[in-house]
Amino acid sequence: MSTERLLYHVWLSPFSRKVILVLGEKKLVYKGILEKVWERRPDFYALNCAGQVPVLVEEDGTVIADSTVIVEYLEEVYPAINLLGKTPAERAEARRIAAWFDLKFNKEVTANLLDEKVFRRLFNKGTPNSAALRAGAMNITYHLDYIAYLVERRRWLAGDELTIADLTAAAHLSALDYLGNVPWEQHELVKEWYSRVKSRPSFRPLLQERMPALAPVPHYADLDF
Amino acid sequence: MSTERLLYHVWLSPFSRKVILVLGEKKLVYKGILEKVWERRPDFYALNCAGQVPVLVEEDGTVIADSTVIVEYLEEVYPAINLLGKTPAERAEARRIAAWFDLKFNKEVTANLLDEKVFRRLFNKGTPNSAALRAGAMNITYHLDYIAYLVERRRWLAGDELTIADLTAAAHLSALDYLGNVPWEQHELVKEWYSRVKSRPSFRPLLQERMPALAPVPHYADLDF
Repeated sequence: MSTERLLYHVWLSPFSRKVILVLGEKKLVYKGILEKVWERRPDFYALNCAGQVPVLVEEDGTVIADSTVIVEYLEEVYPAINLLGKTPAERAEARRIAAWFDLKFNKEVTANLLDEKVFRRLFNKGTPNSAALRAGAMNITYHLDYIAYLVERRRWLAGDELTIADLTAAAHLSALDYLGNVPWEQHELVKEWYSRVKSRPSFRPLLQERMPALAPVPHYADLDF
Repeated sequence: MSTERLLYHVWLSPFSRKVILVLGEKKLVYKGILEKVWERRPDFYALNCAGQVPVLVEEDGTVIADSTVIVEYLEEVYPAINLLGKTPAERAEARRIAAWFDLKFNKEVTANLLDEKVFRRLFNKGTPNSAALRAGAMNITYHLDYIAYLVERRRWLAGDELTIADLTAAAHLSALDYLGNVPWEQHELVKEWYSRVKSRPSFRPLLQERMPALAPVPHYADLDF
């Protein structure tokens, strides 16, 4: 058994990125393990029979799978730095927006762009579907409008404090930004909010991540993009 | 403003059903409001801009959207009857299995059967896709095997007590059972577990639900099926 906290993750996975951000914000030390999920490694399926990253293994051997479940677990066990909010209603709002990005944005945007461009090939499912790429590129603009609507009214997406809502949205956007798929120029308010998230120390591992044979767009790691 | 707790839901929605079960288990009184989401009613979008059911409106006007968010909220505000588990690790296991059904089972089974047979027409998206129906009918068997694997080892899906894991799995299965899409005969252990969930008083509203012009299979509401 390891005596370190382990995080199984993969390049550009927004769900892995969300947990990396949460661990960073909470200042929890871990060792990252790159898990190429498309290789369907039996030892990894023994850890998480869903076969998906991220998976967190605590120092005592506790295994936690599913990014949202990991976040709830970390909030319960390491509450000193609160990323959900103070009241049940505040937490519901942070969770609602996080679910918006993990479900709705993921289905309408991330799956159409990132999954098509990057993961389809790795899973041996052929070449990108051009209708999906067009749909993803169209859909992202209305989600960016929604972020703009929120940050016109609030300092962070769910209220006065940074929460899992910001980290989840930024996790998805950062993976798409690596590919150059975020039209920042038409969305100044969103860009201002994203540059605040991007400047946080918790974001550094994401900006340093490089997928083999797929370089990011030039502005990807610039804090002043 | 209403002085009652309101639940916006729709027939056969597994996500609505999960919240109906949780409200029932916690003995929380509410008024159900049938929301035909495909009509895209502006007043409903004002409540939940994602346009999806379920939405819970508390007596004080607090609006909570997304079934998983509603469950976390109800657990925090009404903890007397605990549906998540006692320790962080137990709660992580209950949440993991709930997420399995809401994400993986939903994508591989519910979307291929229920969405194709019932919701596609309501959303004016044409007739059922026969490849999807075949995929759903094939996929359900391996998920039933997974439930059997769990209940061979545990009294309830996540451990010794009934949790949101059981209620989420049963919410999906009950909607598919209405359509006659659950092959119970090949899965005796699963049937035994399901009949225990089905016998709970919280299940009655589901067994009484009837969608207009779509009768359930004859055994649907039988406790001895």
